[in-house]
Amino acid sequence: MFREDMIKTALGRQDAELVIKNARILNVFTGEILPGDIAVTGGMIAGVGDYSNAACVEDAGGQFAVPGLINTHCHVESSMMTPEIYCREELRWGVTTVITDPHEAANVAGVDGIRFMRESAQGAPIDYFIQIPSCVPSTAFEHNGASIDAEDIWGLIGDRAVSGVGEMMNYPGVLDCNKAVLSVLDAAGEKTIDGHAPALSGKELQAYSAAGIRTDHESTTFNEALEKLRAGIAVLVREGSAAKDVQAVISGVVEHGVCTDMMAFCTDDKHIADIRREGTVRHCIRLSIALGLAPIAAYRMATINAARIYGLKNLGAVAPGYQADFILLSDLEDVAVSQVYKRGVRVFPGEYAGRTSANYKMFPNSVNIAPINETSFALPHREDGRQPVINIAKNRIVTEKSFIRSELARDMLASGQLCKVAVVERHRATGNIGVGLLAGYGLKNGAIASTVSHDSHNIIVAGTSDSDMLFAVREIERMRGGYALVRDGVTLGELPLPLFGLMCDRDPDEFIKALDELIKKCHKEGVNSGIDPFIALSFMALPVIPEIRVTDMGVFDAVKFEFI
Amino acid sequence: MFREDMIKTALGRQDAELVIKNARILNVFTGEILPGDIAVTGGMIAGVGDYSNAACVEDAGGQFAVPGLINTHCHVESSMMTPEIYCREELRWGVTTVITDPHEAANVAGVDGIRFMRESAQGAPIDYFIQIPSCVPSTAFEHNGASIDAEDIWGLIGDRAVSGVGEMMNYPGVLDCNKAVLSVLDAAGEKTIDGHAPALSGKELQAYSAAGIRTDHESTTFNEALEKLRAGIAVLVREGSAAKDVQAVISGVVEHGVCTDMMAFCTDDKHIADIRREGTVRHCIRLSIALGLAPIAAYRMATINAARIYGLKNLGAVAPGYQADFILLSDLEDVAVSQVYKRGVRVFPGEYAGRTSANYKMFPNSVNIAPINETSFALPHREDGRQPVINIAKNRIVTEKSFIRSELARDMLASGQLCKVAVVERHRATGNIGVGLLAGYGLKNGAIASTVSHDSHNIIVAGTSDSDMLFAVREIERMRGGYALVRDGVTLGELPLPLFGLMCDRDPDEFIKALDELIKKCHKEGVNSGIDPFIALSFMALPVIPEIRVTDMGVFDAVKFEFI
Repeated sequence: MFREDMIKTALGRQDAELVIKNARILNVFTGEILPGDIAVTGGMIAGVGDYSNAACVEDAGGQFAVPGLINTHCHVESSMMTPEIYCREELRWGVTTVITDPHEAANVAGVDGIRFMRESAQGAPIDYFIQIPSCVPSTAFEHNGASIDAEDIWGLIGDRAVSGVGEMMNYPGVLDCNKAVLSVLDAAGEKTIDGHAPALSGKELQAYSAAGIRTDHESTTFNEALEKLRAGIAVLVREGSAAKDVQAVISGVVEHGVCTDMMAFCTDDKHIADIRREGTVRHCIRLSIALGLAPIAAYRMATINAARIYGLKNLGAVAPGYQADFILLSDLEDVAVSQVYKRGVRVFPGEYAGRTSANYKMFPNSVNIAPINETSFALPHREDGRQPVINIAKNRIVTEKSFIRSELARDMLASGQLCKVAVVERHRATGNIGVGLLAGYGLKNGAIASTVSHDSHNIIVAGTSDSDMLFAVREIERMRGGYALVRDGVTLGELPLPLFGLMCDRDPDEFIKALDELIKKCHKEGVNSGIDPFIALSFMALPVIPEIRVTDMGVFDAVKFEFI
Repeated sequence: MFREDMIKTALGRQDAELVIKNARILNVFTGEILPGDIAVTGGMIAGVGDYSNAACVEDAGGQFAVPGLINTHCHVESSMMTPEIYCREELRWGVTTVITDPHEAANVAGVDGIRFMRESAQGAPIDYFIQIPSCVPSTAFEHNGASIDAEDIWGLIGDRAVSGVGEMMNYPGVLDCNKAVLSVLDAAGEKTIDGHAPALSGKELQAYSAAGIRTDHESTTFNEALEKLRAGIAVLVREGSAAKDVQAVISGVVEHGVCTDMMAFCTDDKHIADIRREGTVRHCIRLSIALGLAPIAAYRMATINAARIYGLKNLGAVAPGYQADFILLSDLEDVAVSQVYKRGVRVFPGEYAGRTSANYKMFPNSVNIAPINETSFALPHREDGRQPVINIAKNRIVTEKSFIRSELARDMLASGQLCKVAVVERHRATGNIGVGLLAGYGLKNGAIASTVSHDSHNIIVAGTSDSDMLFAVREIERMRGGYALVRDGVTLGELPLPLFGLMCDRDPDEFIKALDELIKKCHKEGVNSGIDPFIALSFMALPVIPEIRVTDMGVFDAVKFEFI
């Protein structure tokens, strides 16, 4: 029946379900823009040319029609929105296919978390492919909520919604031929393995590619991207909330005229506020064209290239036999999205009729803390009488290590010149707490706590008094995860993130406003300008970035890779 | 073990099995040519860069290294050589991957024929992918040896050596939504369906593409190719022994600067003599470059594009993680092949150590004829006293229809001004014989017979006397298929083709010489110059090409699609 409908509709012997008249269609195969109509049946494009007979005829009025965009690598969790809301935002900006690595959800809830992230996007009219997280937990220097091993991947890889194995951050493990790491790669079978190899070069890069890793989204310079392309690794050019690589990479591409066939776009981590303002891949295309990349090349990166890199059949083109995912643009260079069609249904503007979203409240509470009290936040006794200090810098995620005499620390804490920072294990109620000192944060009074702390997402809390730190953690526990600002036993602000302690399902505009207000309150309590109080904290527990961090196991030297 | 070897070799921590030093390597991803070494282990490329330590180090002396070429569509049977010999010839000219449609073997021997063609190439160090013939028999107007239906395809499609379903010649069946035809397309599953749609255009082309057909090799003009590309159909530019499309298509590509991403090369039908002289894909590249196509684009068509079109992973590039299929060229534009490596083993120059080839003599005799005698070749009685005549033209496969009075025909046959032509069913001994008249062939005396006659490959015999026609058929029967030239009960020449009546396993040079001599003898017996006595005959039984043909069921009007 399916092929019959397609053939009859293409021949004009049967009415299409939808015809878009009078479009200027971007053809990714020939690199042309040609006038024509698009005839759709059963969610697929049956014909491109001269079509009129349809249940629904819409006039594009000479607008451009381009294939639906593909975001090749994103962590939905970083938007802080549930998958369904995230997908709605992507759709509104023309992304009809999302390839996501639910790395954060997996760190909290393992395979159940991955399944939940997969299921809860099913309510949105989008193609939502999962790259199974390969590095959960990320390190052995912290405790997270769950682990994913090769056997877990075997159990998931056959799923049609699974496009491969997610970013292999453990490149030292690959290069050392660590057996567990290689087993994870083996489990990908024929599907695509994503890389994550910032600045990897030379023979090490060759080895990483030889291991079967086929993409990377960490190139921050053109030369890095070029070397990866040469090594057969597809370059996913990233433009997220923090990491912004389009300018550096695309400028070089334009200057050197390098072939863009093996390049696509991604966001990695992008916050809902930024997505809502400028979109994701749409923003990448716009920036690239502004940098001098030929529009056709930019759109091909965003569509057919991405589909080929991930082996996604029938996606990425406006042509017969392809899924009817396309967008209408009033301006090609500005990527001015006026209408978005997914499987032949207009999903923007207007409300789409999706399934009811998953009931997030049904998902088990992810915040499980062992009994704690004020003394839990005492600094550890140090034989030499010196305490290590984590010094944070403005607008950078690297930190600097220093030491301070214990007595001086006590005085500076009392005067608000220094904070304590603690990581409270919150997944399996182990009772683990790591406590250290934090300089450069600025909080003068009270405590700030969060369940968003990469990559294990334990509770991280910074404060000037042990009682407020305890109270902030209790508030987080009550909310089942989120952000909290407290002072003297009073909650000054809160933002619940009940899904894994990472996401919520509030209206995005309302959420963005609430977050803005909470951040303002934090700054009012002293958090230094130039520092996002929550994002800065979220990186303090990430033990793979120099120089010094704190995990639930204690203060960690991220250069020597040892606890202090 | 496999990934471990790759990684350690790439890192230089373990000796490679082979290092090619000092090459200028064509990078299909970036479009660059870069100096470097290639390190190989386990038949795969582990690294490209600076490598020296290996069990075997060879110096390329600054020659170009390009990926092994891919012939995207060929009928091995048309070479007249067994698959193993055919593959050896392909390898010698740099083709390391062959995608073949064993359409002729299937017409003779069905699924067994396909299996045999698959198996008998296993002795050659080549990747040999099968597209399962979709149109066997080709028409309902003749009897062939076997049929292939959707169920047969289901039984074969899962095989790793099967890349898809072969050329869907029955485009009227597709457009009419014929159930059996659509079932054949369904059976392809996710694998690639080849098209065959000469001059199909407009909505009909859209419908053909919408049906899921993803390639076509029948474009004889640039505009035809362009329309197919626009419709999302990959264009396999063909240069065979008879059909030569490179000049027309590539000239247009160069003139209009069309993107070549969805284009590759193929030969369709190419005779061993032509392959031996100039190669296959190598010849396509050379011609294309001479026509002005950028060398990089030509090589990409011949390598990575082909691999992508057919979803062949790890083929088509000289990069880590790709199969070590590459060729060294002393000249890039002339495609001067000096060495060929397949899975890291040099297969040219030198003899490769393959498995012993299949024992062709074990395959059942494919020539099975019902009892016949001289009277079998009598012209059918016609009520109106007029006999239809097939008029053949020089260098063209179309024919013209005329009529002649039966008495005049008798006289012209006696004087050698006209021949009889007969098709003797030879697969299932049905006793079917179709007899007609042939003008323009030129044979003055005796008979010429052949088991190569598209697409059903019955015995076709042309002659001036019924007794010689009978004798020629008997000679064919004795040889188990092949070519025969007889006169007055004496065999003047013969060329046995015992494998399906289509191929043999003789030494190619010896075979080419024997064939040349046989053709000369035929011309000596009167066959007109400008006509290949056997190739011309081989098309006389093809009922899909205008205007008039003869099958085992009688003389056929190929315009009205009815027997005369």
